[in-house]
Amino acid sequence: MARTEIATLGEFGLIKHLTEKMEPTQPSTLKGVGDDAAVMAFGKKKVLMTTDLLLEGIHFNLEYVPLKHLGYKAAVVNFSDIYAMNGTPTQITVSLGISKRFSVEDLEELYAGIRLACERYHVDLVGGDTCSSMTGLTISITCIGTADEKDIVYRNGAKVNDLICVSGNLGTAYMGLQLLERERIAQAADPGKAFEGREYLLERQLKPEARRDIVEQLRKAGIRPTAMMDISDGLSSEIMHICHQSGVGCAIYEDKLPIDFVAAEVAEEMNLNIVTCALNGGEDYELVFTCDLKDYEKLIPLEDVYIVGHITKPELGTLLIGRNGEELALKAQGWEAFRG
Amino acid sequence: MARTEIATLGEFGLIKHLTEKMEPTQPSTLKGVGDDAAVMAFGKKKVLMTTDLLLEGIHFNLEYVPLKHLGYKAAVVNFSDIYAMNGTPTQITVSLGISKRFSVEDLEELYAGIRLACERYHVDLVGGDTCSSMTGLTISITCIGTADEKDIVYRNGAKVNDLICVSGNLGTAYMGLQLLERERIAQAADPGKAFEGREYLLERQLKPEARRDIVEQLRKAGIRPTAMMDISDGLSSEIMHICHQSGVGCAIYEDKLPIDFVAAEVAEEMNLNIVTCALNGGEDYELVFTCDLKDYEKLIPLEDVYIVGHITKPELGTLLIGRNGEELALKAQGWEAFRG
Repeated sequence: MARTEIATLGEFGLIKHLTEKMEPTQPSTLKGVGDDAAVMAFGKKKVLMTTDLLLEGIHFNLEYVPLKHLGYKAAVVNFSDIYAMNGTPTQITVSLGISKRFSVEDLEELYAGIRLACERYHVDLVGGDTCSSMTGLTISITCIGTADEKDIVYRNGAKVNDLICVSGNLGTAYMGLQLLERERIAQAADPGKAFEGREYLLERQLKPEARRDIVEQLRKAGIRPTAMMDISDGLSSEIMHICHQSGVGCAIYEDKLPIDFVAAEVAEEMNLNIVTCALNGGEDYELVFTCDLKDYEKLIPLEDVYIVGHITKPELGTLLIGRNGEELALKAQGWEAFRG
Repeated sequence: MARTEIATLGEFGLIKHLTEKMEPTQPSTLKGVGDDAAVMAFGKKKVLMTTDLLLEGIHFNLEYVPLKHLGYKAAVVNFSDIYAMNGTPTQITVSLGISKRFSVEDLEELYAGIRLACERYHVDLVGGDTCSSMTGLTISITCIGTADEKDIVYRNGAKVNDLICVSGNLGTAYMGLQLLERERIAQAADPGKAFEGREYLLERQLKPEARRDIVEQLRKAGIRPTAMMDISDGLSSEIMHICHQSGVGCAIYEDKLPIDFVAAEVAEEMNLNIVTCALNGGEDYELVFTCDLKDYEKLIPLEDVYIVGHITKPELGTLLIGRNGEELALKAQGWEAFRG
């Protein structure tokens, strides 16, 4: 593959080169890349804003993460935060810190992924910042979205007796990461073979989707969740946030957790407890939300939505109910990056 | 000074600890830190959005940049971009990548600077992301602002015969950086002495201000610039952007460039050409704007605003007119980070 040094384009040439294929499509985008700031117009809609910082060696390992997938994921995880507010993502800015190790072609790959995500989710790229870095790749994405005020779902609205639901399946992205890590360490001659039949797990890790479809289903069914979050750090951590902010407790049932069959198989092979992975694995980017009990009948026909527990009085704490009825306190093990 | 390991607080504890003193004051802030996304409401106002990524070793050197100043500057440079659109900054998000080298007290210092900037400019901190980094400190700030559509000033509106104006003085922040670098290399026993009488230069480098006052003066005087930018990379680079995007040329007069006396003195001491520093130094965060000739009379009484040249036909190019009337082509030397 050709290697064009970034210095041959310069900063502005580089930004122009990387963004010229990304034409704004949102009516709210008045001015995208190319001035001090992007300009957007929102009529009566409320504006949502979220941001994520991804650092090489911490959030991704380029030994097994293709740059295009990385770009896709970096954008999608921000969209996921906007959907988790029951909103619609509309614009992003992308800032990159790039070491000399990367060529223009590398950045084209990264942007190809960002572009694909923007196209699929109808989001406009409207600006950013590009600079050199001493070490590794830094990606910072900020996403703006909109919602009608009455539709916005916060974390603090869960009420006693509400149902707790999750979308998709849990722990799958984590098992995908374990597979990738194992093959990286083994430096397998033919990793493709080791991954056979397990492509879905890799996809969940490398190229997750934001659950726009779930938010749309809820809207069509006339269900407004009382609280909602996306699952980036693991269900335990997220439901504890909801309980803490809502001033309630919860009971999650182990046997209700949606678990992918192949993920469970790989967990067994690796001597990992799949329930622990499902509760603490992180990076699934599924949604966890709470609903009033009266919405039960409306919830049942929804595709890929599972009731996993219910909200309790705060004094009961945040519990995991095991298969034999035993009660365990939930633990948030999601974020341990600063430890050890 | 006490040193509290970041691990003792955890991610959410850390964010809460750092942001709890920052209460939203903007009516448009409906929900700040603490959910998947911040929520803002803007009536008929247009929304502006800008972002900046600062990396240790590239954009700042902690050997001589106090963390509080760094926080202040990181916020202010984003406000500057919003003022450069003739808008008003209203909210920011702050994302940090932090290595284990930093303690909670260090981050408190950084946030004290961010908080001070937010208070002075009436901007709300509404969210962000905090994660560990392998090496050094990464700061990514995104700023949202508002403006009435008719007020927004782009880079592409400059017309032939428009006046070119700049605020403040140019090259001063660059001379401040040279002073700091010289003392760092010399490892002076008493750098305070070396800086005596030159504190203003250091302040320009370490703790710049965004020119809100200039934007307000223009508004009061009934002047709407035809094009405007903030000067982060140097006047040469910025005016060339305006000319390129507006399809015009320019003539900048060397003897009209506003230059600080002490900065000129230090430049001479260091055998640097102060005009080159003023044109290419960068980080002054002053404003450069173009105005219709009919606004000339209104411009004269404005404080700290200097007419430095005029817009010409595109075929005349982008020129610097020397003290003896000689014509030199302007060069954008601002961004050389990927070279060498």
